[in-house]
Amino acid sequence: MRIEGFSSAAIAAGIKYKERLDLGLIYSEEPAVTAGVFTTSQVVAAPLVVDMTRLKQGRAQAILVNSGCANACTGAEGMKNCLAVSRLAAERLQIDEGMVQLSSTGVIGEQLNVEAFEKGMPQLVDGLGPENFEAVAEAIMTTDTCKKTVSRSLEIGGKTVSFMAMAKGSGMIMPNMATMLAFVITDALIGFVELNDALKKAVDATFNRITVDGDTSTNDMVLIMANGRAGNPWIEEIDSPDHALFRSCLEDMLKELAMMIVEDGEGATKLITVRVCGAREQQEALQIARTVANSSLVKTAFFGEDANWGRIIAAMGRSGVKFNPDKVDIFFDEIRIVENGVATTTEAEAAAGEILKNKKILVAVDLKEGSGCEEVYTCDFSLDYVRINADYRS
Amino acid sequence: MRIEGFSSAAIAAGIKYKERLDLGLIYSEEPAVTAGVFTTSQVVAAPLVVDMTRLKQGRAQAILVNSGCANACTGAEGMKNCLAVSRLAAERLQIDEGMVQLSSTGVIGEQLNVEAFEKGMPQLVDGLGPENFEAVAEAIMTTDTCKKTVSRSLEIGGKTVSFMAMAKGSGMIMPNMATMLAFVITDALIGFVELNDALKKAVDATFNRITVDGDTSTNDMVLIMANGRAGNPWIEEIDSPDHALFRSCLEDMLKELAMMIVEDGEGATKLITVRVCGAREQQEALQIARTVANSSLVKTAFFGEDANWGRIIAAMGRSGVKFNPDKVDIFFDEIRIVENGVATTTEAEAAAGEILKNKKILVAVDLKEGSGCEEVYTCDFSLDYVRINADYRS
Repeated sequence: MRIEGFSSAAIAAGIKYKERLDLGLIYSEEPAVTAGVFTTSQVVAAPLVVDMTRLKQGRAQAILVNSGCANACTGAEGMKNCLAVSRLAAERLQIDEGMVQLSSTGVIGEQLNVEAFEKGMPQLVDGLGPENFEAVAEAIMTTDTCKKTVSRSLEIGGKTVSFMAMAKGSGMIMPNMATMLAFVITDALIGFVELNDALKKAVDATFNRITVDGDTSTNDMVLIMANGRAGNPWIEEIDSPDHALFRSCLEDMLKELAMMIVEDGEGATKLITVRVCGAREQQEALQIARTVANSSLVKTAFFGEDANWGRIIAAMGRSGVKFNPDKVDIFFDEIRIVENGVATTTEAEAAAGEILKNKKILVAVDLKEGSGCEEVYTCDFSLDYVRINADYRS
Repeated sequence: MRIEGFSSAAIAAGIKYKERLDLGLIYSEEPAVTAGVFTTSQVVAAPLVVDMTRLKQGRAQAILVNSGCANACTGAEGMKNCLAVSRLAAERLQIDEGMVQLSSTGVIGEQLNVEAFEKGMPQLVDGLGPENFEAVAEAIMTTDTCKKTVSRSLEIGGKTVSFMAMAKGSGMIMPNMATMLAFVITDALIGFVELNDALKKAVDATFNRITVDGDTSTNDMVLIMANGRAGNPWIEEIDSPDHALFRSCLEDMLKELAMMIVEDGEGATKLITVRVCGAREQQEALQIARTVANSSLVKTAFFGEDANWGRIIAAMGRSGVKFNPDKVDIFFDEIRIVENGVATTTEAEAAAGEILKNKKILVAVDLKEGSGCEEVYTCDFSLDYVRINADYRS
């Protein structure tokens, strides 16, 4: 798949490691309507500070992204380096410097290797082509074991609108308003306010519902660029039928990417959906689901394929949400293992044990207090998670 | 050490496993002034419900405690079983049933084996003796690798006041108003209000500052019984000099027990003190310290002996507390590895790497925003934590 007007490139610039793709560029021939969401951490990496300022104009033409160095907690020098690499890209691309969005992922606290950008920039820009989107998706991987791209198209007003998207992420994943890096390009004709609204809502329903280890990154960001080449009727009103179509397609894509991130969670062997229903409010359902999805004891039990629902209800109990434990039902897939707060049958427990051997598992909780319902997606907690993270920087 | 008027006993009752101590009894010859703190989880185990009601009278004479079964999430049958075993103890001890405090630890969701209590009770009560406090400490162990007891004595008004205390706990440890089981006996002469106040303050400064895995149990409880035999001047006013002496001694003991729990955290190889100073408020310092102490990424880095301060500052960033990352200093023991938000020197990083080989490590953060200061105690996150918790019920 390709989207007219966009091209991409990736090279092995040697930013941290030798001979692996680590520098990527996504380029739009004309300024594209661009929206972004960024980490809510108090600690925000330098490139995100630059991006947020530049995005006030609602337009961008390039995304320059590197792995190997997060450029977070790097002080004035980190900011200077950001501006330096953005200038290098703008000069070579012959575009305005403010049209460059920057993105970085990797180790926190190390300075960016500007020399590597300088040396690589001619090759990078000269390599721009419509087929290299996948190469960029590879260049942004860190502990990811596979690259993550999706594409979609839909009809709006008789015109085909296309999307391509990529993401990376495997550890330090509990996005809050954003996730580890994700980039979307589309030829939709859409206003900035409408694009921004669609992105925020889609991210909230997808990336903001996943967790690998409960840690929110300093570099989380999602960007979407829309160049308008599809020639669809201008989407100029939030919640109009066309906007709803656009948003739903975007949400569907981001959901697929979000699931890819959880499935590729560091050391993960299982994808677990934690669904909490019957809460007094949706926010309370989310709070309980998040607490269960982040519990180390719940996650290690899943790794051990142990239907240890006691840990699930214990995590619910400390979530800070009031509920009546004597009304709680817990299901593993379709098997009700707990009814009104107590274990059902040994047959149910045995059946749940079988379900836990699967790669994808639904844990559904019914509080029977109201109609609030939410889902959070997580993975199990394995020996490999510890191995990966004990050795990450060595 | 022994405390006049108290005796203890422990037996292997076969509640879950064969031939290991699993049922304990602590007995006071006369009704002792007794105070307790209990889990703040919404899911409260049956024995704690009984205890809280009975403790309204401020007196107790016996603590009956079992391991192997938490008697949590066991519904009406679980409550019936609680009352049954408490009756068995009261009858054999010939005391009022309301004078028995109950405590359980083990797997959540399984019913109590009342028959084992019935069979074992005569042997248990007949075995009461002043030397068996250590045996009870052994009987309450689950994944603990060592038993945890401490004792102290101090002078109050020319009289020697003695304390003995035990605790258990290794996983599902992030106590909130209480911890996994801890019991204290003393011969101090003290009023209920004064005892209660001293216990709450001491627990808040000790057990409520530790975490192994961020999971709060359904069965957390701390009980203290004071029989008055020391004959010290009656401690009848909160914050009086004698009350302050008593409280400080109690806090010192509980701190020692709390540290024993963290050091014996499931799979732990290191004891880490996370100290946050310079916060605008004490509560904010605590919130940041807790977030860092519970971060899986921080804890696995410690296991890997990697001075990965980027994970510390990333965890701080998602704590929900506002601070200026450009003012943050981070120390490993006395080595300043981060100054004003950026790495200091490669020599400092190398020195921090050496410090991380130690068994006890201080991580100190200075926010330079105010005078709020707090400490939280945690352990590293090892391969063995996952092994233990993937296999716990099998």
